Amino acid sequence: MPEKTEYSPKMQKLVELAAELDDLNHISAVLGWDQHIYMPPGGAEERGLQLSALGRIMHEKFTSDEVGQLISELVEEVGDLNAETDEARMVKVSKRAYDKQTKVPLPLLMEFIQTTTMANETWVKAKEEANFSIFQPHLEKIVDLRQQYAELFKPYDHIYDPLLDDFEPGMKTAEVKEIFEQLRPQQVELIQAIAEKEPPDNSFLKQHYKEEYQEIIGRYVITRFGYDWNRGRLDVAPHPFTTEFGLGDVRITTRYLKDDAGSALFSTMHEAGHAMYGQGVPKKYSRHPLSGAASLAIHESQSRLWENLVGRSKEFWSFFYPSLQMLFPEYLANISEVDFYRGINRVEPSLIRVEADEATYNMHIMLRLEIEIGLMEDTMHVKDLPEIWNTRMKEYLGITPPDDAQGVLQDIHWSGGMIGYFPTYALGNLASVQLWDTMLKQHPNVPDEIAQGKFDTILGWMRENVHQYGSKYEPQEIMLKATGSKITPEPYIKYLKTKYGEIYNL
Amino acid sequence: MPEKTEYSPKMQKLVELAAELDDLNHISAVLGWDQHIYMPPGGAEERGLQLSALGRIMHEKFTSDEVGQLISELVEEVGDLNAETDEARMVKVSKRAYDKQTKVPLPLLMEFIQTTTMANETWVKAKEEANFSIFQPHLEKIVDLRQQYAELFKPYDHIYDPLLDDFEPGMKTAEVKEIFEQLRPQQVELIQAIAEKEPPDNSFLKQHYKEEYQEIIGRYVITRFGYDWNRGRLDVAPHPFTTEFGLGDVRITTRYLKDDAGSALFSTMHEAGHAMYGQGVPKKYSRHPLSGAASLAIHESQSRLWENLVGRSKEFWSFFYPSLQMLFPEYLANISEVDFYRGINRVEPSLIRVEADEATYNMHIMLRLEIEIGLMEDTMHVKDLPEIWNTRMKEYLGITPPDDAQGVLQDIHWSGGMIGYFPTYALGNLASVQLWDTMLKQHPNVPDEIAQGKFDTILGWMRENVHQYGSKYEPQEIMLKATGSKITPEPYIKYLKTKYGEIYNL
Repeated sequence: MPEKTEYSPKMQKLVELAAELDDLNHISAVLGWDQHIYMPPGGAEERGLQLSALGRIMHEKFTSDEVGQLISELVEEVGDLNAETDEARMVKVSKRAYDKQTKVPLPLLMEFIQTTTMANETWVKAKEEANFSIFQPHLEKIVDLRQQYAELFKPYDHIYDPLLDDFEPGMKTAEVKEIFEQLRPQQVELIQAIAEKEPPDNSFLKQHYKEEYQEIIGRYVITRFGYDWNRGRLDVAPHPFTTEFGLGDVRITTRYLKDDAGSALFSTMHEAGHAMYGQGVPKKYSRHPLSGAASLAIHESQSRLWENLVGRSKEFWSFFYPSLQMLFPEYLANISEVDFYRGINRVEPSLIRVEADEATYNMHIMLRLEIEIGLMEDTMHVKDLPEIWNTRMKEYLGITPPDDAQGVLQDIHWSGGMIGYFPTYALGNLASVQLWDTMLKQHPNVPDEIAQGKFDTILGWMRENVHQYGSKYEPQEIMLKATGSKITPEPYIKYLKTKYGEIYNL
Repeated sequence: MPEKTEYSPKMQKLVELAAELDDLNHISAVLGWDQHIYMPPGGAEERGLQLSALGRIMHEKFTSDEVGQLISELVEEVGDLNAETDEARMVKVSKRAYDKQTKVPLPLLMEFIQTTTMANETWVKAKEEANFSIFQPHLEKIVDLRQQYAELFKPYDHIYDPLLDDFEPGMKTAEVKEIFEQLRPQQVELIQAIAEKEPPDNSFLKQHYKEEYQEIIGRYVITRFGYDWNRGRLDVAPHPFTTEFGLGDVRITTRYLKDDAGSALFSTMHEAGHAMYGQGVPKKYSRHPLSGAASLAIHESQSRLWENLVGRSKEFWSFFYPSLQMLFPEYLANISEVDFYRGINRVEPSLIRVEADEATYNMHIMLRLEIEIGLMEDTMHVKDLPEIWNTRMKEYLGITPPDDAQGVLQDIHWSGGMIGYFPTYALGNLASVQLWDTMLKQHPNVPDEIAQGKFDTILGWMRENVHQYGSKYEPQEIMLKATGSKITPEPYIKYLKTKYGEIYNL
């Protein structure tokens, strides 16, 4: 059992409430994990009802007047909610969640749940048939409901703010726009420069690597990273994800493709990055108002750091490439380490976000952010999205989707009403390099350590500068504390230019 | 979606309450399934807290005065609770559950939970060390708490009645004692007669059969039985079990032993028997007061029927033996079908209940029932159990455990406070043959069908005579309806005598 902190009686009540909510949230996560991995088709209907029952119980427990009263009293008790004590922040995050949940009228919430449930079903069909028109009315309804939702949080600086804030506490649309405006021209320029060069060969990856051995190398790599198997496991799922059932059980999934050996390995490292964050939150925050993570962007900074800054680095492969060659001599015996490194870092403007390389990934996000802001501002309309999408894809990446399934319909997020989510992916990329650079300044030996298969310094630094805070600080506070600056695009741009400058001889 | 029955407004409230309770119970089942099969060790502590949180929520939801009021009003609304309408029985089973749950003072319930949690941990250790003395004080406490529990249900005919009733609604100690008293001498006589004969060879089973192929035959057999994979799955667990997450998701587990090929196959058939009962309850009883099964004995009648009456029959193997020989020629090529049949039906008095054959199994249960009744009546004392156990094992089965781990400590039940559970295993055996005989009278072709690998008639008959009722009727009502008689030992004795008479030339 963790050492228990002494709290005031009221604060203790808040802790107990948070503990129960955490339990129920983690129970939902178990149901979701099973649903995606093991549930037989016949279980779907009842599982949905079980998840609703839990959701209803959580909503009732947390939105009662009694809870509101407790939080008001605690606001008075702690005074400054932005003080750096645990107590102040426990009240701040609880108040934030309570205010958000109670501001939404139940009919609007129910309509949103029903609309997104149907929209999601239709999206699956629309994507299969590459038919945007059947999805269009659903998305129009979702945009309308998200606008109504945002209106509840007036006054705001921008109508997109309340949505963004659901995923990035405290982050403003203006901040993200500014970051992306700096990023866009430089990233476009880089992609164009790369496009003029001969791409490195990566055909050795586009083979059917034996699944069993892909799993062996994946497990080996993340074990060395420091993923704690006593508190986790790896399963196979159609779309890789990480899920937490508590500090003691943070699981990951991956998938093994028959025509792309990189997919499983890099996604395993990616998910392990998320999971090591979950495992790294201190035990005092287990079942506690400050459990969990700062934000999606901070989460993504951890996954991208292990996937890209570690997993696609020269040093990493100088250690691991011999093991990989041993497992797959039929494909790699004649591929040199340097050719392998160049191959896995090949830049290739592509239609699908989840398959994008480091150089082009953020362009996919910017496109989505522009559309989301346009929709919320009513300066864009759902019916025009396919055209807008295709035009900008051409402009940013030089390619045009052959159909909407590979264009505007590719991602699940909007069908679930998750407008405001996408920017966190790009912000996570930026944050990953920013954290990495700061760590390197303090620990210049890290690349040598990686080349020796040692990752303690990296994980230790992340534990100390990111994980240890749980959800105590907002994302920009974490970045300020850790790196001396809020999220900024310069380090990322510099990193891309240096890395690809060398690989592509720019 | 199932067709919804029209209920009175109050009845509808009861249905909604039952639906939520079913959801929460099934959620608990998902957590438990994962805990036994996939959870990493680090997840144990938080998982325990999650299950407690759910238990607390269910207790609160179901024991409120409001629920009591609703049930009282419904009792008046339906009048005779024993009427054969769904409505009457919905109220009857709800009232029964409500009365049971609210009769127990919360402090006693909490003490029972804490005691059994600690007792279970100690039992694991005691069994490992074959040291009864460390478990003794825990079991003494449990007996005391179970006695206190039973006292709450005064007046009773026998102090064991309230415990038995938790597992076998409506069943009385006197009924079970009478059944077992008829059974004991005849079963002892049979075992003694068998002991004088040369046992058939079964060494071909005590080999390391390839696990992958064991799984193939297991899946093949239960698929032919009619287990619905769209609403189920098979996993590996240390102790085989069946679990239900709703009518649409009824899962089973098995285990593959390195030195006993029979274990996985027969346990797979056994669990499939349980699961087909779960899958066979009609959809109108999904998330409903009459969801679930009549009792543990009726459940066990289904599992034992498929495992033994079907799975250990000559006809079954006349169909499946060629497939088994194909998979395992190294062990079975030279074993004739008849020798195989005799081998899997070898009778061998053994120390461990879960390994017992059909002829000796009930003796293990009778021993436990005598001890449970003795403890509850205070005519036996916990400290004397090892001696009582060993003396009666010698008397009933002619063998003496070398230590208490293989004797009185072998089963988990008592450490969890489950006194009253064991008799349901033997009652299930008796009921399985009684149902089987009735079915055979109506469908004398069944053995021929089995020999052709056809099981529709059997499953159809069970659906109609057992599964379709959910928990509407008490176990003895089901037996009366289906067979014209309450549970009686004669058919079972006759079955054993005929079967073993032939195998052993008695």
